[in-house]
Amino acid sequence: DFLSALQEIIPAFGASTDDLERCRLNGIVECGERHRHLYQRAMLLAEQVKVSKGSPLLTCLLEGPGGSGKTAMAASIGIDSDFPYVKIVSAESMIGLSEGSKCAQIVKVFEDAYKSQLSIIILDDIERLLEYVAIGPRFSNLISQTLLVLLKRLPPKGKNMLVIGTTSEVGFLESLGICDAFSVTYRVPTLTREDATKVLEGLNVFAEDDIDAAAEVLHGLPLKKLYMLVEMAAQGARGGSSEAIYSGKEKIDINHFYDILSDAVSIHR
Amino acid sequence: DFLSALQEIIPAFGASTDDLERCRLNGIVECGERHRHLYQRAMLLAEQVKVSKGSPLLTCLLEGPGGSGKTAMAASIGIDSDFPYVKIVSAESMIGLSEGSKCAQIVKVFEDAYKSQLSIIILDDIERLLEYVAIGPRFSNLISQTLLVLLKRLPPKGKNMLVIGTTSEVGFLESLGICDAFSVTYRVPTLTREDATKVLEGLNVFAEDDIDAAAEVLHGLPLKKLYMLVEMAAQGARGGSSEAIYSGKEKIDINHFYDILSDAVSIHR
Amino acid sequence: DFLSALQEIIPAFGASTDDLERCRLNGIVECGERHRHLYQRAMLLAEQVKVSKGSPLLTCLLEGPGGSGKTAMAASIGIDSDFPYVKIVSAESMIGLSEGSKCAQIVKVFEDAYKSQLSIIILDDIERLLEYVAIGPRFSNLISQTLLVLLKRLPPKGKNMLVIGTTSEVGFLESLGICDAFSVTYRVPTLTREDATKVLEGLNVFAEDDIDAAAEVLHGLPLKKLYMLVEMAAQGARGGSSEAIYSGKEKIDINHFYDILSDAVSIHR
Amino acid sequence: DFLSALQEIIPAFGASTDDLERCRLNGIVECGERHRHLYQRAMLLAEQVKVSKGSPLLTCLLEGPGGSGKTAMAASIGIDSDFPYVKIVSAESMIGLSEGSKCAQIVKVFEDAYKSQLSIIILDDIERLLEYVAIGPRFSNLISQTLLVLLKRLPPKGKNMLVIGTTSEVGFLESLGICDAFSVTYRVPTLTREDATKVLEGLNVFAEDDIDAAAEVLHGLPLKKLYMLVEMAAQGARGGSSEAIYSGKEKIDINHFYDILSDAVSIHR
Amino acid sequence: DFLSALQEIIPAFGASTDDLERCRLNGIVECGERHRHLYQRAMLLAEQVKVSKGSPLLTCLLEGPGGSGKTAMAASIGIDSDFPYVKIVSAESMIGLSEGSKCAQIVKVFEDAYKSQLSIIILDDIERLLEYVAIGPRFSNLISQTLLVLLKRLPPKGKNMLVIGTTSEVGFLESLGICDAFSVTYRVPTLTREDATKVLEGLNVFAEDDIDAAAEVLHGLPLKKLYMLVEMAAQGARGGSSEAIYSGKEKIDINHFYDILSDAVSIHR
Amino acid sequence: DFLSALQEIIPAFGASTDDLERCRLNGIVECGERHRHLYQRAMLLAEQVKVSKGSPLLTCLLEGPGGSGKTAMAASIGIDSDFPYVKIVSAESMIGLSEGSKCAQIVKVFEDAYKSQLSIIILDDIERLLEYVAIGPRFSNLISQTLLVLLKRLPPKGKNMLVIGTTSEVGFLESLGICDAFSVTYRVPTLTREDATKVLEGLNVFAEDDIDAAAEVLHGLPLKKLYMLVEMAAQGARGGSSEAIYSGKEKIDINHFYDILSDAVSIHR
Ligand SMILES: Nc1ncnc2c1ncn2[C@@H]1O[C@H](COP(=O)(O)OP(=O)(O)OP(=O)(O)O)[C@@H](O)[C@H]1O
Ligand SMILES: Nc1ncnc2c1ncn2[C@@H]1O[C@H](COP(=O)(O)OP(=O)(O)OP(=O)(O)O)[C@@H](O)[C@H]1O
Ligand SMILES: Nc1ncnc2c1ncn2[C@@H]1O[C@H](COP(=O)(O)OP(=O)(O)OP(=O)(O)O)[C@@H](O)[C@H]1O
Ligand SMILES: Nc1ncnc2c1ncn2[C@@H]1O[C@H](COP(=O)(O)OP(=O)(O)OP(=O)(O)O)[C@@H](O)[C@H]1O
Ligand SMILES: Nc1ncnc2c1ncn2[C@@H]1O[C@H](COP(=O)(O)OP(=O)(O)OP(=O)(O)O)[C@@H](O)[C@H]1O
Ligand SMILES: Nc1ncnc2c1ncn2[C@@H]1O[C@H](COP(=O)(O)OP(=O)(O)OP(=O)(O)O)[C@@H](O)[C@H]1O
Ligand SMILES: [Mg+2]
Ligand SMILES: [Mg+2]
Ligand SMILES: [Mg+2]
Ligand SMILES: [Mg+2]
Ligand SMILES: [Mg+2]
Ligand SMILES: [Mg+2]
Repeated sequence: DFLSALQEIIPAFGASTDDLERCRLNGIVECGERHRHLYQRAMLLAEQVKVSKGSPLLTCLLEGPGGSGKTAMAASIGIDSDFPYVKIVSAESMIGLSEGSKCAQIVKVFEDAYKSQLSIIILDDIERLLEYVAIGPRFSNLISQTLLVLLKRLPPKGKNMLVIGTTSEVGFLESLGICDAFSVTYRVPTLTREDATKVLEGLNVFAEDDIDAAAEVLHGLPLKKLYMLVEMAAQGARGGSSEAIYSGKEKIDINHFYDILSDAVSIHR
Repeated sequence: DFLSALQEIIPAFGASTDDLERCRLNGIVECGERHRHLYQRAMLLAEQVKVSKGSPLLTCLLEGPGGSGKTAMAASIGIDSDFPYVKIVSAESMIGLSEGSKCAQIVKVFEDAYKSQLSIIILDDIERLLEYVAIGPRFSNLISQTLLVLLKRLPPKGKNMLVIGTTSEVGFLESLGICDAFSVTYRVPTLTREDATKVLEGLNVFAEDDIDAAAEVLHGLPLKKLYMLVEMAAQGARGGSSEAIYSGKEKIDINHFYDILSDAVSIHR
Repeated sequence: DFLSALQEIIPAFGASTDDLERCRLNGIVECGERHRHLYQRAMLLAEQVKVSKGSPLLTCLLEGPGGSGKTAMAASIGIDSDFPYVKIVSAESMIGLSEGSKCAQIVKVFEDAYKSQLSIIILDDIERLLEYVAIGPRFSNLISQTLLVLLKRLPPKGKNMLVIGTTSEVGFLESLGICDAFSVTYRVPTLTREDATKVLEGLNVFAEDDIDAAAEVLHGLPLKKLYMLVEMAAQGARGGSSEAIYSGKEKIDINHFYDILSDAVSIHR
Repeated sequence: DFLSALQEIIPAFGASTDDLERCRLNGIVECGERHRHLYQRAMLLAEQVKVSKGSPLLTCLLEGPGGSGKTAMAASIGIDSDFPYVKIVSAESMIGLSEGSKCAQIVKVFEDAYKSQLSIIILDDIERLLEYVAIGPRFSNLISQTLLVLLKRLPPKGKNMLVIGTTSEVGFLESLGICDAFSVTYRVPTLTREDATKVLEGLNVFAEDDIDAAAEVLHGLPLKKLYMLVEMAAQGARGGSSEAIYSGKEKIDINHFYDILSDAVSIHR
Repeated sequence: DFLSALQEIIPAFGASTDDLERCRLNGIVECGERHRHLYQRAMLLAEQVKVSKGSPLLTCLLEGPGGSGKTAMAASIGIDSDFPYVKIVSAESMIGLSEGSKCAQIVKVFEDAYKSQLSIIILDDIERLLEYVAIGPRFSNLISQTLLVLLKRLPPKGKNMLVIGTTSEVGFLESLGICDAFSVTYRVPTLTREDATKVLEGLNVFAEDDIDAAAEVLHGLPLKKLYMLVEMAAQGARGGSSEAIYSGKEKIDINHFYDILSDAVSIHR
Repeated sequence: DFLSALQEIIPAFGASTDDLERCRLNGIVECGERHRHLYQRAMLLAEQVKVSKGSPLLTCLLEGPGGSGKTAMAASIGIDSDFPYVKIVSAESMIGLSEGSKCAQIVKVFEDAYKSQLSIIILDDIERLLEYVAIGPRFSNLISQTLLVLLKRLPPKGKNMLVIGTTSEVGFLESLGICDAFSVTYRVPTLTREDATKVLEGLNVFAEDDIDAAAEVLHGLPLKKLYMLVEMAAQGARGGSSEAIYSGKEKIDINHFYDILSDAVSIHR
């Protein structure tokens, strides 16, 4: 079927996937049921866009806490589909630009995509594209209006498009009406204890007896924090031990791991 | 009489209706008593404008939840009347413009219409024309003032005009005083269970025994969501089944249909 | 006496009254005691301005619900007085202008008027001149300050002026201090049942037996809504009947009249 | 002594008092104990400025309800003192100017005054200079800061200055800190019944028996409203009677006077 | 020791003290224990700056009610120290300037001071430099940020600086974080009854028996108000008596003094 | 191991550390357990960055009350690491610049650092970079968005970077989402009684018997306040005694020390 078929195909030509690959700095590992399920749902949307007649435009929002894996998942859809046009729109390439210029760049990406029969556009960290801060709150209404219209405007006849948005401020997008502008919204969760266990087993940096204890304290944290904490702990209390640990010669001291967590006050919040 | 007469007339010449046709992507199907009644009332306004002496300007607001069919209905009035000038004013063709430019474009449409003896102007998604967001709230007062004046300003002597507005933010327009500026306001409703049944029967993608169950969960959703959910479900859980379903060889699995609904968290809100 | 005298005089020359006539689209009919009384009071102010030595500037505000007849009444004063300079200042001729330009236009009208020995200036829909919306609220303080000063600034020696303002947002003007800046404020009311009966009798579109019932439901509505509802009802439920009704051959069906009212949700508010 | 001396002096040369005279459109009549007392206190300040060594700058604020006589009183001080430089700063001559230009004009008046050994500057209707509206509230902070500094900045050595401000928005000035910036603040009151009686006797337009009744209803109104109401009433119910009344041939009908008051809804507030 | 030494030194050359002298219009008199104590503390800071190695920048805020003597005290420190660079930064010389220009002028004063081995900068009436009004509140954040940085930025190596700020809006500065930016804050108080007695004895304008009564009502008032009230009272009820009183021939009438106080409504607040 | 190794290395070449040295005006003394622990943790991060493969960007926020030693600690990390690129970004070098220019300067520092294989950037007093004031609150959203993106944007492949931020307004940064943008947050505390004792012993300016009493009142104050208070007290009550005290000939009078504290009202808050 479609999903398994996709895994096998190597697109003859297609979008450059360099930018997308950088979004998966720690690769893609098996990290729980929900993540896999969402990936599959999103891939189905890509299929639907390909064959749809009645819905030339499908839009899907991935929301969840910072570091839960939204961007990596969106990038994976872009890479794994064989769409000729895949583009990520991110605030990183628009630092310091005026609202108007950002707006123009976003519109440009859509106009370019309209020329392709099939296209995927990833709107990464929508709250950042909108220059959002909770205080006030403040944000760019120019960009917000632009997104609201683009998420509803049909591509030209015969062209089909999938838009994937990511955000960790779903409440804010909700109050802007941007959530409603998406066809569907999926929540990308933090890790459960079981998820954390699975990932830690793969990493192989804790003694087997310590994995459960470590996974316990990682419960409820997002995937990206797990990678960061493990790497900090791998330095050891006096530095210099990371090589030994990654090569498998030593294991992370579980007490030092606890220390690292409790020092970094903001981590548990 | 007038309404039946209209259906028979093929206008010798008239407004290009291409833009209007794009507003009815899923065609116009019989979808309940209220929709038909509102269509008839609005067609009567078109007649009134044609023969009126005391009211050279009539204005009518169609309000209702997103996707309930407002734009398609307004477009239908524009197409079904035989007015020489019919124009839709939409934010889609004004992305990124300044308030002043948008304002000028809107005024231009009215000025052009004043030259025609009979004209219909559709102000589509008025909240979007006003660049509205709930946070703040923010909106363009320049455009808001322009609409308030245009909705009251009489066309030149001997010219008659019908203005149809659509909005899914009637509370906001209310507080701007824009609702009061319209002669009448009609509410376009979501689907009842009966309405949904009728539409699903027409689509013929569920087994006969499942139609009631499907219609049940669609109760209270707008028409456009119905089309979207059906198409998503038609892909099947592992993709690839849509052709078989639309050609009538297979039916949508009702449990998969439920899954689709419950995954997409924002849909039921 | 003065009031009857005025009716007889045909001014040898004077202000062009074309603009003013357009403000009385449905003419002036006898519509109740209060309307007539206010008209007389306002005409007395025009007389006072003519003979006054101690008050070279008189200012009068007509406030009341939308459509109650304020603009038509102000226009009538302008037409019925024989003042050489009568000018209406309205947002309709200033769409899209900047605050500064509007301000300059308003000041220009006053400066021109100062050259005439006797002048009347009508500031129509002051909330619209001020670009008012309830949300915020927002309005132009530049124009608001300009009006506050103009309503207090004396014309040059030997010149006398009457300023008539109209508004349906008296609470707002109150909070700006603009009400206090007017010498007097008169409230133009909606129709009572008796008023409505009188107007409907004049229109002669209902069967004699239905007039009371129709007037009953029109109680509390403004004059302009009455004209609009009657015209809508005159089309008949299936269109085409207005000619027969206005020529007196048929009468409006009272049940259809009720339907029209209940459909248009916003009308009764 | 000083006060009586002042009345006798006719300044050999001095400030043009034309502008100041226009501020006393209805002249200066005896209108109650408090008005006279305040006038005397203010004249003492003018004397103090003339002889002071330790206080080269004195500042005095006259506050009170609209029409209570603040501007006329300030103008009288300016006229009755024999200061070589007397200037009134009013929003009337600055309509439509930018904050910056207004600011510059105000500063210019002070700089000019600094060249004169003795000067009086009247800041009339300070809330209007500040472009104040209660909604918001809004006002020009540029002008507000300018006044705060000018009210404290000493003239050059050897030059003495009296600044008189007027306002009917003392609460607002209070919250800006402008009240505290004045050396003293005096409240100019509305009329008591006794005050009104005295003024009406002077006007001689009521029958002797009606004066008390008329004064009764005028209690608590400001002086300027009294003049306006009397003039309106003098037209008579059907117009044309003012000449007869001012020439003394007829008297104002007390019932008509009551009518005038009750019609003008905003008057009593 | 240092403090007594200072009184004796006449600086061979130094900052022009003309501007500073104007800040002490009524001279410096003995007016209570607290004033003297604060003066000594502030002089100690000047000494510390001179000899300090670890603190090249000392900053001190004098806060207290309007007229309590802050500016005069700061000026005295500037004059009494023998620092080569002493400069007062005041809003009086920056009327009408843009925030940017004011900011530049303030920075310029600091840059100049950095060239001097020892310098004192007086930031007079900081709330005025910041264009503060309580409504809103509003103020210049550009200038506020500039001060926050300048109050913390170290002078170049080898240069030492004392900054003295004054304000009567300490609560406002507090909420900006400007108070915390100063090394120390001293409160300059209003007069106690004893302080007032001492000052009145020095002035010698009341009969000996009246001094206690007068001082009683002056309790809690700031020094500057005392001078103003005494001068107003010295004119006498009918003017012209000030010369006799200052020359000692007459005394101020204590009842007239009470009158003056009660008339000026804002004085006691 | 790493930490001790670092102390011994004198970098052959590296970042100019002049600016960084100025941040430690009073040197670095042993001032308590927590300070040392934090310093070690931060040094470990520097090591991690050097060897990391999975985390090319590490970010660490030092937060704590004003004067607690954040800047000095960050500077020490910069100096003690042997990174080729170490740069401090501070508001001191950007006084009066526009938001845009500040933004550009900050971006420039990052772009430069991206060219170095290893780099440390210190964002000192982030609230000041953001032009923060509590009133409103106000701040630069342009700079805030820039930091939010820069703190997440990966350096080019093969380049590793450590960003250290300091702030005394952690609650504000929290509400901006800037805290969450940092990998870890460490709180730099005020002095405990024990810490104060240790520092005072080092300074040797109190009689041995007084050290405990002095440390007692210094409990809860930040390090920088301790230095300032000691220096003020060292002048003595009448000035001139500081030389004797620093040379060890005299000791600070403990009562005078108490006086200094109680006078400076804002110190204890
Ligand atoms: N199955 C997986 N799904 C998603 N990410 C994974 C998975 N396995 C490993 N990862 C790694 O987890 C990290 C997820 O980080 P990512 O940037 O996608 O999170 P995010 O939710 O976008 O965070 P942020 O809210 O900060 O934008 C990536 O480094 C990715 O390589
Ligand atoms: N009887 C009908 N009336 C209206 N729309 C219909 C009808 N039958 C089918 N449709 C289809 O339903 C859809 C209604 O969508 P439409 O865009 O008009 O809704 P809307 O209320 O304007 O939504 P939005 O609030 O998002 O602007 C269209 O695709 C239209 O083709
Ligand atoms: N006696 C009357 N007085 C006023 N208007 C009358 C009278 N008789 C008939 N009319 C008609 O009633 C209508 C009143 O509408 P008008 O525009 O003056 O109302 P309005 O109060 O100014 O409304 P809005 O608040 O919308 O500006 C006009 O068409 C006018 O011709
Ligand atoms: N003794 C008096 N004192 C003041 N005004 C007097 C006196 N006698 C007569 N008048 C008249 O009363 C009127 C007072 O009006 P004035 O404009 O001075 O009031 P105001 O308080 O300044 O009003 P506003 O608040 O509108 O500025 C003037 O026309 C003046 O000629
Ligand atoms: N010992 C003293 N200390 C301070 N001022 C004194 C003293 N003796 C006399 N004065 C006089 O008292 C007055 C104090 O006024 P000053 O302007 O310094 O007050 P301020 O607190 O700065 O007022 P403001 O809050 O309005 O700026 C000056 O005129 C000064 O000459
Ligand atoms: N162990 C130490 N850690 C930090 N600072 C120390 C230490 N020992 C002495 N100091 C001195 O303490 C002072 C700390 O001041 P610093 O400017 O670093 O504080 P800060 O927390 O950055 O203050 P602010 O909040 O005002 O920016 C410096 O002068 C430094 O030389
Ligand atoms: Mg992401
Ligand atoms: Mg629509
Ligand atoms: Mg009107
Ligand atoms: Mg006045
Ligand atoms: Mg001062
Ligand atoms: Mg610091």
